[in-house]
Amino acid sequence: MNAATPTEFFSNMPSRLMPEAMLERLQGRFGERCSTALPVRQQHGRDESPFDAPPPAAVIFAQDNEDVAFVVALAHEHHVPVIPFGAGSSLEGHLLAVQGGVSLDMTRMNRILRINTEDLTVTVQAGVTRNQLNNELRHEGLFFPIDPGADATLGGMAATRASGTNAVRYGTMRENVLGLTMVTPTDGAIHTGSRARKSSAGYDLTRLYVGSEGTLGVVCELTLKLYPLPEAVSAAICFFPSIDEAVKTTIQIIQTGLPIARCELLDINSVRAVNLHDKLGLREAPMLLMEFHGSPASVAEQAQIVQDVARDHGGEDFDWATTPESRNKLWKARHSVYFACLQTRPGCRCVTTDTCVPISRLAEIINASVLDVEATGLPYFVVGHVGDGNFHVGYLVDPQVPSERATAEALSQRMVEHALRLEGTCTGEHGIGLHKQAFLIEEAGVGAVAVMRLLKQALDPHNIMNPGKIFEL
Amino acid sequence: MNAATPTEFFSNMPSRLMPEAMLERLQGRFGERCSTALPVRQQHGRDESPFDAPPPAAVIFAQDNEDVAFVVALAHEHHVPVIPFGAGSSLEGHLLAVQGGVSLDMTRMNRILRINTEDLTVTVQAGVTRNQLNNELRHEGLFFPIDPGADATLGGMAATRASGTNAVRYGTMRENVLGLTMVTPTDGAIHTGSRARKSSAGYDLTRLYVGSEGTLGVVCELTLKLYPLPEAVSAAICFFPSIDEAVKTTIQIIQTGLPIARCELLDINSVRAVNLHDKLGLREAPMLLMEFHGSPASVAEQAQIVQDVARDHGGEDFDWATTPESRNKLWKARHSVYFACLQTRPGCRCVTTDTCVPISRLAEIINASVLDVEATGLPYFVVGHVGDGNFHVGYLVDPQVPSERATAEALSQRMVEHALRLEGTCTGEHGIGLHKQAFLIEEAGVGAVAVMRLLKQALDPHNIMNPGKIFEL
Repeated sequence: MNAATPTEFFSNMPSRLMPEAMLERLQGRFGERCSTALPVRQQHGRDESPFDAPPPAAVIFAQDNEDVAFVVALAHEHHVPVIPFGAGSSLEGHLLAVQGGVSLDMTRMNRILRINTEDLTVTVQAGVTRNQLNNELRHEGLFFPIDPGADATLGGMAATRASGTNAVRYGTMRENVLGLTMVTPTDGAIHTGSRARKSSAGYDLTRLYVGSEGTLGVVCELTLKLYPLPEAVSAAICFFPSIDEAVKTTIQIIQTGLPIARCELLDINSVRAVNLHDKLGLREAPMLLMEFHGSPASVAEQAQIVQDVARDHGGEDFDWATTPESRNKLWKARHSVYFACLQTRPGCRCVTTDTCVPISRLAEIINASVLDVEATGLPYFVVGHVGDGNFHVGYLVDPQVPSERATAEALSQRMVEHALRLEGTCTGEHGIGLHKQAFLIEEAGVGAVAVMRLLKQALDPHNIMNPGKIFEL
Repeated sequence: MNAATPTEFFSNMPSRLMPEAMLERLQGRFGERCSTALPVRQQHGRDESPFDAPPPAAVIFAQDNEDVAFVVALAHEHHVPVIPFGAGSSLEGHLLAVQGGVSLDMTRMNRILRINTEDLTVTVQAGVTRNQLNNELRHEGLFFPIDPGADATLGGMAATRASGTNAVRYGTMRENVLGLTMVTPTDGAIHTGSRARKSSAGYDLTRLYVGSEGTLGVVCELTLKLYPLPEAVSAAICFFPSIDEAVKTTIQIIQTGLPIARCELLDINSVRAVNLHDKLGLREAPMLLMEFHGSPASVAEQAQIVQDVARDHGGEDFDWATTPESRNKLWKARHSVYFACLQTRPGCRCVTTDTCVPISRLAEIINASVLDVEATGLPYFVVGHVGDGNFHVGYLVDPQVPSERATAEALSQRMVEHALRLEGTCTGEHGIGLHKQAFLIEEAGVGAVAVMRLLKQALDPHNIMNPGKIFEL
């Protein structure tokens, strides 16, 4: 627990105690897979968000769907919260036991159940991570594109409607989950979707659960779309005189309809941090990191178009990485930005924004956000899945200095308000969690949030599933 | 009303009478835009399905969101059904007033509100049709790809989660609606989504309403994704010795990951019918009708790969259409298959199937379905969006001969059971409507349908929105 604990904004939530009778039944079924040891509870009571809350009362390590169904049914009976836990990489406090209850660790449910190479589908347990899946798929000549950076579990990625670097071409978890096995509070285990590519059979329960942040049930299994590994892949970096020129290059690429596979922005602070962290020796300037997928001829054609656009915006030092090794080095650097930046200020915590706007307004909001943070003197970095109009500013705050956190929150607030004026969203991929609940109401409106609450009350009448997240009831 | 009326399977549904007080209030607000004339009611009481039901008690012609909100609020107060009505092209009885009530005609809400060329988005009223939209967009160098054949309204297309010929590359309404303005029974007008390409802000209400078949609220406005008109477009037809070889060609194309834009199958009966209807002189053999989008080089490359695959499967007479006129002629023929086939048997009605399966199982189920119908002697045709694993068999039944309808239903039943064994769906794009409710339970399971019912009860507590569709409460 750090100094911020007593003042966390959610500290007035009701804490719901777990009755002794429930703990006994959990211990009876799960034995050593039910832990009340403080270190285990503490490890499951935090995530990558800057928030702190008391740990859950117990941690259950589920091994199969029946384990999950047992826990949810028992919790439903006793009105006790259940918080599904995957890799622990949430940035929005999703994993915090803000109302007490049980953390349901899904990481032992990590089997790849079935790869259908002919249909380009795979069925996995929720605890499988994206790297685990892609390591397995490589032998089949296939891959799963959704890449939020962290080696998250696929269940967690579904819960937050994750996306990341490949979304500009391949979509997000919304587009790539074909079906789910969910354990629900009201109806036990249910199956949604099918292995068909499309369906008009009833309400789209798959899409309702994708992005529901654990508040409607527990993702146990997922059937996902796969893609053939592209015949040719080429990555490129290019440096720009300003963030503005880098973003304008992106906007123009997207508007042409060019099927770029990845288009990532790193600001100068991010480049400096990864240079230190990964010893890369990159030029210290705003940078686009791009990737192209297709046939060799198509990749070459895309690359030529992009180079021409970039040069018009002052892009220089175009550098190509066509071998897997050189590409992996670049993407590893991209994925280490978050931790590399944390290390530039020892002991800091990171308040991360996640706005996403219509592509034509992206330069405007990034420029304004940079000016705004520069004026405060707070250390920060900017990275972006700019092809989607999505970017993150990380504010590096000293947890011992409450005014820094307040400054970061005020910057974030102004950025979200700006994004909403531009008809964007307060969160492109991280979810609402604890922290963006007021933003959700501002973005969606009171009526739409009222409809969401009706859904929650209908599907989780005792409010046991990850309570206190997305909205308060 | 034809001879089948008294025996329609849904004739035992409760009919809910509209109180005189409600009619007076409708007449007071809408004047001539509230019609109780029998021909108007009859026209709004049927669709392209083979079913008949008594017409609605009144038809309201809405002009704006406030009109819709007024009707829904009044109907909510009086517990009277409201059935949103667009182009009337439903194939599954969605527009039939099976429990009485008001048909809400949306076709006068046909304004394109805002085209954002820079962001590739458009906002339209629900009564805009897809052809109207694309005629407008052409001047901007953009298009909206979803093409269910009929010139449906975009509100109707959202309601049934429509797809059609371009879905293999561009997705369905599920992937292409960014946001909605809905009038809901509980919370009036609400907005879902934003103009950002992706979002993790709360429950995915957009996807919940897309495909809800008018049972949760009325679609009033839609914000849609657009695409730049491809630099090059090329269409091709190719004839095969059997349906099996045509489908196997498709499977192989999809498995390579080639970004084919359209891939349509026409069986020999469909080809004969369009030859008669459109005077085309096509070779009478199973045919694939394909389209490729991209740069000139990429289109040429795709075409070469596809020709090689097709030749391996006995494909012959590869014929290219690269001018807009020659392409339009082919696609007009494709879109007239349904009506062309109806005309081959004057007075007939069509029972249409809509199964969709994982691509590797497509040849198997089409072959079995053709054998099955051939054994009955019933006239039929097969068309398919085969790139998605989706195909339709149309059974042409004489409405005066009840045994033909029974035969068609039995064939359809066996095909759906087959599709479900192959992990497919009973409906790829037409929806559940009246007719596939038992199939939905078989496909989704009792638990998932129970969850759908909870959603319906929460969002439409008086069951006024298009009652009796998808499931009975």
